[in-house]
Amino acid sequence: MQPFAKTPLSEIRDAVAAGAIEAERLVRWTLARIRAAADLEAFVYVGEDALVADAAPAPSAGPVRRSLAGLPVAVKDIFETSAMPTSFGSKAYAGHRPVMDAAIVTALRQRGAIVAGKTATTEFAAWPPARTRNPLDSARSPGGSSAGSAAAVAAGLVPLAIGTQTLGSVVRPASYCGVVGFKPTYARLSRAGLKPLAESLDSIGLFARSVADVRLLYEALVDEPGPETADRRGLRLGFCRGAWWSEVAPDARAAIEASVGRLRAAGLAIDDVDLGPAFADLVEIGRTIHDFEMRRGLMPEYIAARDRLAPSMAAGIERAGRWTAADHRDALGRAEEARMAFQRAAAGYDALLCAAAATEAPDMSHTGDPSQNIPWTVLHVPCLTLPAATGATGMPIGLQVVAERYAEPRLLAVADALERLLSAGAGTASSRYLPAWADAVCADETLWAPGAQRRA
Amino acid sequence: MQPFAKTPLSEIRDAVAAGAIEAERLVRWTLARIRAAADLEAFVYVGEDALVADAAPAPSAGPVRRSLAGLPVAVKDIFETSAMPTSFGSKAYAGHRPVMDAAIVTALRQRGAIVAGKTATTEFAAWPPARTRNPLDSARSPGGSSAGSAAAVAAGLVPLAIGTQTLGSVVRPASYCGVVGFKPTYARLSRAGLKPLAESLDSIGLFARSVADVRLLYEALVDEPGPETADRRGLRLGFCRGAWWSEVAPDARAAIEASVGRLRAAGLAIDDVDLGPAFADLVEIGRTIHDFEMRRGLMPEYIAARDRLAPSMAAGIERAGRWTAADHRDALGRAEEARMAFQRAAAGYDALLCAAAATEAPDMSHTGDPSQNIPWTVLHVPCLTLPAATGATGMPIGLQVVAERYAEPRLLAVADALERLLSAGAGTASSRYLPAWADAVCADETLWAPGAQRRA
Repeated sequence: MQPFAKTPLSEIRDAVAAGAIEAERLVRWTLARIRAAADLEAFVYVGEDALVADAAPAPSAGPVRRSLAGLPVAVKDIFETSAMPTSFGSKAYAGHRPVMDAAIVTALRQRGAIVAGKTATTEFAAWPPARTRNPLDSARSPGGSSAGSAAAVAAGLVPLAIGTQTLGSVVRPASYCGVVGFKPTYARLSRAGLKPLAESLDSIGLFARSVADVRLLYEALVDEPGPETADRRGLRLGFCRGAWWSEVAPDARAAIEASVGRLRAAGLAIDDVDLGPAFADLVEIGRTIHDFEMRRGLMPEYIAARDRLAPSMAAGIERAGRWTAADHRDALGRAEEARMAFQRAAAGYDALLCAAAATEAPDMSHTGDPSQNIPWTVLHVPCLTLPAATGATGMPIGLQVVAERYAEPRLLAVADALERLLSAGAGTASSRYLPAWADAVCADETLWAPGAQRRA
Repeated sequence: MQPFAKTPLSEIRDAVAAGAIEAERLVRWTLARIRAAADLEAFVYVGEDALVADAAPAPSAGPVRRSLAGLPVAVKDIFETSAMPTSFGSKAYAGHRPVMDAAIVTALRQRGAIVAGKTATTEFAAWPPARTRNPLDSARSPGGSSAGSAAAVAAGLVPLAIGTQTLGSVVRPASYCGVVGFKPTYARLSRAGLKPLAESLDSIGLFARSVADVRLLYEALVDEPGPETADRRGLRLGFCRGAWWSEVAPDARAAIEASVGRLRAAGLAIDDVDLGPAFADLVEIGRTIHDFEMRRGLMPEYIAARDRLAPSMAAGIERAGRWTAADHRDALGRAEEARMAFQRAAAGYDALLCAAAATEAPDMSHTGDPSQNIPWTVLHVPCLTLPAATGATGMPIGLQVVAERYAEPRLLAVADALERLLSAGAGTASSRYLPAWADAVCADETLWAPGAQRRA
């Protein structure tokens, strides 16, 4: 098992900056790879005009470091883009061209990133499944709602992708696809230009093939370098199965327990943590908030364009009518109490470990069970998927790493340390894991200037 | 001083339902009044097609009571409308026609309300002042950013209007215009289709000419009837000047103190409440969150259309570059701590009283000082303006009524009781206060079927 990229993305960025790789050639090469993988249906729009649109450096208010210069990024089609069609996965918005880019798209371009295209999403990031296939097994789903972003990174088409998580749509697809998924603290990244699903939960998330790469993207977006590296000997970690552990399939339980066991065998101190009954209802709380806010937020589409919505989407909106304003208020209040309680419960730990998903990737008929993600999304805390183990059929099972709100630098440093340990102990690489984009770039001689230094 | 409407809006609604007033005639009459008051510049678009668009009852998922049937509502042009242009107060969006209505617009139409037009806003609900004049003194501003919505209700053009408050853009304009302004708990009403300014603060707010009318609108929107009426003898109220009281002008201080004095003289128990030092920095916290999120959220507009932004808008975005991601994170964390502390501090009170604005309405060059509003917006609590007194030049000064999060039913019941006391003790009506829409409807014989029963 070796899902992590060998080539740090920063090496490719630096090679572009140094002229060892020609930026425009790299973009064309990437777009050609995306088009060649059309059967994956990861992208709903490939940025033919990406070169033109992104060639001119964007002006900016104040200095912004071009720390992503030359790196292609795929963006979930739930974000508005003025240069590319934006349909939020819905026929109700077919051909829609927004006036402006979403703030996250502008932030990427300001930092020199190339928006390579828009990736498939479930309708409005809710129902039904996207047509995207899991790159590790084309009979399976990559999960959802950020289906295309997870698959695009897993297939090595792009090194980085943007998604969103309202229940579990970043951490879970990352688990299913064997990539790193990272959802920062709620509202840590601007949601301007994001189509709302449930505003009290909607969060932006990032996909990459290693912790170092996801960190490169995150630190660029928040303009905050995180110099922190974790000394594994001093780490205090907790293994937190949670009240929702009962939803985890036996093979996934065994995989998660084994991952924690390997880390303990490597010398890490990992307590078993029981959060207690105050957190038992987080899944129900999250579903209540999600359903109530989804219904009221999408009522315009339901009324104006019900005939163009997928039947399962319309049915979901109808079903959500069972929740009242009082249910919603109650759920929001309980969520806030749980957030405060978690601040205390997690105070002694550098990070908590838990399951990133309840199963291996499901079949194409659905996007999987978000039960292992909802509690953390409701708590508004940062969480990250480490593709650490495999399930009964050899598909990846992610270990989820969680920390308190705003503790992203520490979480990323811990995840980096854990990734090293898990990689080191992983033994042979599985050929089923597709090469990461950076590894493919490194291996393709045609991209490099004659005599350029690069990793073997 | 008698700024409150005499005719409850529910009477007009019931008269329309009973056929004593013809719905279509009422809408045409309202649109004609709006057009006749063009010099006020309250509206940027008058809904010529409102009749057509709103004549067909909207289908809905599940039963929704048409509790606003026949009532015109003005909507701030910061909300998307598919049938009317939406420019967010900015030349960068001139002629923009969104695909869908904002969720609040759909919610109004589902309940039978007539969207009469779009009201003026400062650019992106930030800078610079709208051209709208204060109906009580055309040399003065109605405040901002919800300038047009406050003015439209104050001038009796519509009975109800929707605005937004990110720092103080509902409660403060209501104070300047002598109307009731009500900002419910953060995220209590869906913000889907609202152009974000600062997502951690943006809230929807409502304008009307009495507490009963604003309550009619609020309870219709949340589908929660609030049967609660407050027994004034049992009320426990606090008068909370706050650390920001130093910003209040001497005449406004005197007006607020006098209002509280009148309530005490009427037999109400009102403690002096000192929130303590934990709340002293809320104004600075709010400005940090506002500036940081505004800048990152509007960076797409700044980069793509800087030449079409007002100079003060572009300058505001540039100035906000002084705040770092660490400042923002720190401010969000302190805001959350203050919210928890306020839950405890306010627990013994049915409501707190404070200043709705620091001064009377300012001149047309600016929208006034939000110092008395920012703390409550940051706390995410519901707050309401009661036009209770007048300042040095006879312009209104509002008393602000505040309660804990999600305590809207209690807050509205308390405000209703306070309004009765303040009206009763107010003596003669001032002719400068323009008649409320409902009073004007009641007085216009041409609107009523022959022999229809109505108030004198």
